[in-house]
Amino acid sequence: MTEAAAAHGVRLAEEARAGSRRALARLLTEVERRSPAGEAALRLLYPLSGEAHLVGVTGAPGAGKSTLVAALIRAARATGRPVAVLAIDPSSPITGGAILGDRVRMQEHAGDTDVFIRSMAARGHLGGLATASVDAAAALAACGFPLVLIETVGTGQSEVEIAAVADTTLVVQSPEMGDEVQAIKAGLLEVADLVAVTKGDRPGADLAAAQLRAMLTVGAQHDRAAGDRPRPRRPEVVVVSGATGLGVADLLAALDRRSAAQRTEAGMAASRRARAAAQVDGIVAERIRERMADPARRAIREATIDAVATHALDPYDAADRLLREILP
Amino acid sequence: MTEAAAAHGVRLAEEARAGSRRALARLLTEVERRSPAGEAALRLLYPLSGEAHLVGVTGAPGAGKSTLVAALIRAARATGRPVAVLAIDPSSPITGGAILGDRVRMQEHAGDTDVFIRSMAARGHLGGLATASVDAAAALAACGFPLVLIETVGTGQSEVEIAAVADTTLVVQSPEMGDEVQAIKAGLLEVADLVAVTKGDRPGADLAAAQLRAMLTVGAQHDRAAGDRPRPRRPEVVVVSGATGLGVADLLAALDRRSAAQRTEAGMAASRRARAAAQVDGIVAERIRERMADPARRAIREATIDAVATHALDPYDAADRLLREILP
Repeated sequence: MTEAAAAHGVRLAEEARAGSRRALARLLTEVERRSPAGEAALRLLYPLSGEAHLVGVTGAPGAGKSTLVAALIRAARATGRPVAVLAIDPSSPITGGAILGDRVRMQEHAGDTDVFIRSMAARGHLGGLATASVDAAAALAACGFPLVLIETVGTGQSEVEIAAVADTTLVVQSPEMGDEVQAIKAGLLEVADLVAVTKGDRPGADLAAAQLRAMLTVGAQHDRAAGDRPRPRRPEVVVVSGATGLGVADLLAALDRRSAAQRTEAGMAASRRARAAAQVDGIVAERIRERMADPARRAIREATIDAVATHALDPYDAADRLLREILP
Repeated sequence: MTEAAAAHGVRLAEEARAGSRRALARLLTEVERRSPAGEAALRLLYPLSGEAHLVGVTGAPGAGKSTLVAALIRAARATGRPVAVLAIDPSSPITGGAILGDRVRMQEHAGDTDVFIRSMAARGHLGGLATASVDAAAALAACGFPLVLIETVGTGQSEVEIAAVADTTLVVQSPEMGDEVQAIKAGLLEVADLVAVTKGDRPGADLAAAQLRAMLTVGAQHDRAAGDRPRPRRPEVVVVSGATGLGVADLLAALDRRSAAQRTEAGMAASRRARAAAQVDGIVAERIRERMADPARRAIREATIDAVATHALDPYDAADRLLREILP
């Protein structure tokens, strides 16, 4: 790491801590890029980010995630609390600007420095989306945003990645969904800590919530697949309406109850530990890739792989040779 | 690696090379376990396995894979060629015995030492199924079986893993399948080098083959997804009948043409190189895991991860600390 880059990162971190949103935005860009400046900033901020609550907001497309996140922002601001949102954007490049939904929400809170909304590309992160999200959330928490909502896309791998690292996974469920999404529902409900049934101002929401509660009671008796993080309790189901604000304060209170519980519950400690292990392992793998990428070592790697491909060298000898190169 | 284990592996390899099928079977068990004996055996055998043709046989359940593999064995034996089959078994533990289909086929070729059939567990391999298959195939090739058929289960991840490492992916397709499997078909056809339409003795097979040829002509114009290995040509479609033997000799000839082509075509060299890189990287990752697993290092790792989980240490410092432990 160059001195200049490290100094730049430290300066951004200090300015962001002091309240500069412009510095915070630039800092998050460096963190997302995993640049030397971003690393220096994170080294400084990470020990200051302890009390954060990282909430993954997920659900099938059309379930009403964006509307609910906007309502949660309003509810948090009504009680004077700052709130940050990382909106996972499936399309934007890693440097990408805000997606349309963000711009709309941004306008509503224009001038309110205690609302911070940021798009984040779903793909292209060196250490994976989960690591990038956890790093960004740590930086946000250290800069005055202990409640960080990560709004996922609603399809594919990013849901699972975020669920694996979030303190709380909030699954957003529309009461209007048909049978064809039962499979998706089942997959998402597997990772739910809390379920919000949206469109609570319309008929059918209470019935849908009752059905979900019954379903989750049965599901709670199933063994979790190996590798899942422990789910200490059956997910609470809350009926909300993003449009009217119905139930949103209750949902925020349910999130806060989980946040308080996670300081005491053993299952939560295990989950934070698993997240820490994934973060550290990700950085170790990145460091090893970096070591192999310098020109001299890369040439040795290419030659070694070629020798294995032509059966001149066995893969074990090749691996040992590369390990000797990786090690300084 | 202990001297005794290494000597045991070398002895098994020598006996297997000399023709002992019992030694070959025990050797494959060691290779699958990635034991020190297996590693010693592979180090010896890998340079001797250059001319192998590794054929992944895949297709939806019920397409007729097992029947076709049995027919390919008969066709190979009719010309005096030895043939080995690795049958991926989704259910058996890693030490598992032969599945039912194997026992039936084994009976047909009982006493024929030039047919070698072996079950292999789909899951539980330390370095992944693909690495385990490539290692087993290298051992088989060095012991007199240059043609190795890997018969996959027909569902899920194992298809894709095998397709990524096989020299040739043979997709087996029944003419009787309905629309509901179109999606599966499309996924498998993406990775096809050769397509066998089964039940060629019944009406409909020739029409199905014609439709597939038309479909593949269109598909060949699409860009391949990033990361796919290059497919140098449009897959050939062969109509076969496992029951009557119709077309099976043609299919074997088509496989042999691909085997000959792979020594000259650039796309094939790239594919072998990618396979070698995956093998070596897998062993490097395994070595690093092994290093971290010794009791002293494991204690340091646990303490380091705990410090990150409680925010007493940042993940970058933690990663650097672990790297210093891994390296010496």
